[in-house]
Amino acid sequence: MEQSNALYAQSGGVTAVINATACGVIEIARKNIAKIGKLYAARNGIIGALTEDLIDTGLESDADIAALRYTPAGAFGSCRHKLGTIDKHRKQYERLVEVFSAHRIRYFFYNGGGDSQDTAYKVSQISRELNYPITCIGIPKTIDNDLPCTDNSPGFGSVAKYVAVSIREAGMDVASMSLTSTKVFILEVMGRHAGWIAAAGGLAAEKEGDSPHIILFPEIPFHTEHFLKRVKECVNNYDHCSIVVSEGVKNPDGTFISESGLVDAFGHKQLGGVAPVIAKLIKENLGYKYHWALADYLQRSARHIASKTDVEQAYALGKAAVEMALAGKNAVMPIIVREKGNNYRWTIGEAPLEKVANVEKKMPREFITADGFGITEAGRDYLQPLIQGEDYPPYQKGLPLYVKLKNTAVAKKLKTTFEIA
Amino acid sequence: MEQSNALYAQSGGVTAVINATACGVIEIARKNIAKIGKLYAARNGIIGALTEDLIDTGLESDADIAALRYTPAGAFGSCRHKLGTIDKHRKQYERLVEVFSAHRIRYFFYNGGGDSQDTAYKVSQISRELNYPITCIGIPKTIDNDLPCTDNSPGFGSVAKYVAVSIREAGMDVASMSLTSTKVFILEVMGRHAGWIAAAGGLAAEKEGDSPHIILFPEIPFHTEHFLKRVKECVNNYDHCSIVVSEGVKNPDGTFISESGLVDAFGHKQLGGVAPVIAKLIKENLGYKYHWALADYLQRSARHIASKTDVEQAYALGKAAVEMALAGKNAVMPIIVREKGNNYRWTIGEAPLEKVANVEKKMPREFITADGFGITEAGRDYLQPLIQGEDYPPYQKGLPLYVKLKNTAVAKKLKTTFEIA
Repeated sequence: MEQSNALYAQSGGVTAVINATACGVIEIARKNIAKIGKLYAARNGIIGALTEDLIDTGLESDADIAALRYTPAGAFGSCRHKLGTIDKHRKQYERLVEVFSAHRIRYFFYNGGGDSQDTAYKVSQISRELNYPITCIGIPKTIDNDLPCTDNSPGFGSVAKYVAVSIREAGMDVASMSLTSTKVFILEVMGRHAGWIAAAGGLAAEKEGDSPHIILFPEIPFHTEHFLKRVKECVNNYDHCSIVVSEGVKNPDGTFISESGLVDAFGHKQLGGVAPVIAKLIKENLGYKYHWALADYLQRSARHIASKTDVEQAYALGKAAVEMALAGKNAVMPIIVREKGNNYRWTIGEAPLEKVANVEKKMPREFITADGFGITEAGRDYLQPLIQGEDYPPYQKGLPLYVKLKNTAVAKKLKTTFEIA
Repeated sequence: MEQSNALYAQSGGVTAVINATACGVIEIARKNIAKIGKLYAARNGIIGALTEDLIDTGLESDADIAALRYTPAGAFGSCRHKLGTIDKHRKQYERLVEVFSAHRIRYFFYNGGGDSQDTAYKVSQISRELNYPITCIGIPKTIDNDLPCTDNSPGFGSVAKYVAVSIREAGMDVASMSLTSTKVFILEVMGRHAGWIAAAGGLAAEKEGDSPHIILFPEIPFHTEHFLKRVKECVNNYDHCSIVVSEGVKNPDGTFISESGLVDAFGHKQLGGVAPVIAKLIKENLGYKYHWALADYLQRSARHIASKTDVEQAYALGKAAVEMALAGKNAVMPIIVREKGNNYRWTIGEAPLEKVANVEKKMPREFITADGFGITEAGRDYLQPLIQGEDYPPYQKGLPLYVKLKNTAVAKKLKTTFEIA
C-alpha cells in the first residue's frame, strides 16, 4: 500500500503557544508512523502548500521538536492569505490537489483562527468537489479568543496572563510614583473587535484600589465625560489611575478612537495608538502627568510568561487533531470543552468546521460591569482558569533558549509553479 | 543609653528590584536590633522625611518583609524631589534635623539614582553643618545604569533582561509573519541620556540574522539615509528587520527624534514615542508594513522576568548599607565591584557620595559597533552577566503574588508642619 503523508501549516497571527500545538501534531504523528509516513510542514501557511514549498519535519531531532513546546511564534512561518471559494477559484484547489498528490498527502492540518478555519473548511471539501481523498482537520489558535464552539482558543490564555501580569506590575510602579510624578498609566492591548484581551487585564484587580482601575472595551462606546469623571474619581481615591485600553475602542459614532487623534507633520492621520489619544485627553482636561505603553507583539510572543493551562491545551489540541484524522474524521476542529463544576476541568471535544468558519464569538455583555469599566465575577470566573499555571522555558546566558528548526525543504516534484494572487 | 533609630527611603523612578534592597536593609537591621532600635521608612522618599510622614517597618511581619525581595515598584512610595544646597535652603535641613531628632533617627539610608545620591550627600553633611549626629548611606538604584563608581546599578540588569527577552520573542514573531504581513518591528525602550538599556537588547542577537538587527542609541546621531539603507539590507537578507530604539535618539542637530514627528489635531507636538516616527519613516520611504511597541513602565516593573544577578546585588547592597552604617561610616555608597577574570564574580565595595552625586556614567563608545547599529563583544561581555539567572516570584491564581505592606504611620511628635516647595 502506498504511504500516506500529512501536511501541517500555521496561519494568521502567531502566538506564544502555536508551536506547542505543532509539537503535539508532530509528536503524535511520529508515534503513528505506520499510518502517517511523513509529516511535512508548509512554509508560511497555505502559501507553502500552493507553491510546493514544503518542509520535512522528519529531519528535525526529537529534542528540537520537544523544544517547540516552549518556543513562541510560528516555527514554519505563517501567512495572512485566504482561499477563495471553490466555485470561483477552482485553480487554487486544483493546485492544492496537484501538490497533495505529488507528495501523497492525505491529511492536512491547518492551525489558525477564524479566517484560517474558513480555509480549512474549504480544503476539507476537496474530497467531494475534486475527488481527491484528503482529510482536513482545523486546529484552533487565536489570541483574540473569538473562535466559536470552543470554550477558548489557544494563544489567548498566554496573552491574558501577560496583560494581567503587566498591568499589575506597572500599576504598582505608578502607585509608587504618584505623589510627585505620574498619576495615570495606560496600557494599550490588542483586540480590534472584541474586548477579551482587555478584559483579562481585569484579573489583576482583586480588591478595591488594585490596578487596573479602568478598562476600556470595544464593546462599550467611549464617552469622554463619563471616562474623565471616572479617572478623576480614581485619582481622588487612590492618588493614581491605571487603565487598560483595547485598541478597538470606538467613539459613540462607531469610529475608532485610535484614528481620531493624531496627524503627522504632513497632516496625514497617524494610525494605531489609542493610548496616546486617551493620555492627551486626560492631560488636557485633568492635567495629570501620564505614561503609556503599547504592548503590541510583545503580548502575543511572550512565551516567557505563558499560561501553563494554555500550553497544555495547545499541545492537546495538536495531539487530538492527529487522532481525529487517524480516526477517519474530516472537516472537524478539536475544541476545548469546559466541564461543569466549581473546579476548572477541561476535555477535548470536536466541532464541524462548517460551524466554525467565519463565525466570531463575541464577549458576553454580562462579563462587563454595568458602568462599562471593569469585569464582573462571571467574567473573572471564565477568564481566571485560562491564565492558571506557569510553564517557563529553559534559559541560557540569561535568555530563553528557544529552538530554531532546520526547516529543510522537501525536493519539489512538480514542474509547474503557482503565483499567489 | 538612648535608642538609635534608622530611616530608609526610596527615591526617583522605581525598579523591579528596589524592594529587594529594602528587604536587605530591613532584614539586616532586624538582626541588629541592639544597635538599630526601630527602622522607619519615609513615605514617598525625602518628602516623607520632611513632612514627618514615617512608616514603622517593625509592624510588618518577617514574611511580608521577605516578600519584598520579589515585589516590584517602591513599597514605601518614591518621589522626584531634590534638596537644595545647605547654604541656600537651610530650612529644609533644619526641618530634617527636627524630624530626625524627634524620632531619634541616627542612620539615614537613601536608595536612588544620581539625583538621589546628591540628596544623600547633602544629608550626610548635616553632622558637620548642623551639628546633629546623622550617618547617611546612599544605596544605588537606577535602571539607567548611569551611576559612577559602581560597575552597574541595581534595576538595570532586570530591565536589560526584559528588553533582551522581549526583542528575542517579538523578533521571532515578525520573522514568522514577514512573507505576507509585517516586515519591520520596532521596540522603543527607556534611556533618555544613555544607551545602556537599548544596548542590552543586543544580547538577544547571538548569531547572524538574530533579532535585533538594528539598535538606535542616543550616543549615535540618527542619519536617515544610513538607517534606511540598513533596514533595506536587513529585509533583503532576512525578509524582516527588528529594531530596538532608545527614547533618547537624536537628530544630527541634537534635537530628540521623538519630538520631531507628530502633532495632534490642534497642531501641538505630541511628546514621547520615537518608535512611531521611525516606523512612518520606514513606511514612507521603503513601504514596509510595520508594528511597534513602547514598553514604558512595563520594562522597569517586570519583576516576573527579573535577573537573578540583579536581585542578589540589590539585596546585597541593602545589607551592606546597614553594615557600613553600623561600622560608623558616613557619606558613602556601597557599590558593585566586578572582579577580574573570565568568569563573572562580583563583590561589594564602597564609594564616597561626594564622587557619586551628579556624575553621570556614559556608555563607552567601544560597546557600540563601528556602524553604530549594534553592540561589540566588549559590550556583550559587560552586559551579559547582569541578566544572568531567573528569580521567579510565587504565583497565585495565575498571577505573581506581590506583597502590599501595611505601611502603618508613626505617630507624629512635632507640632509643626512643613510645606514642600
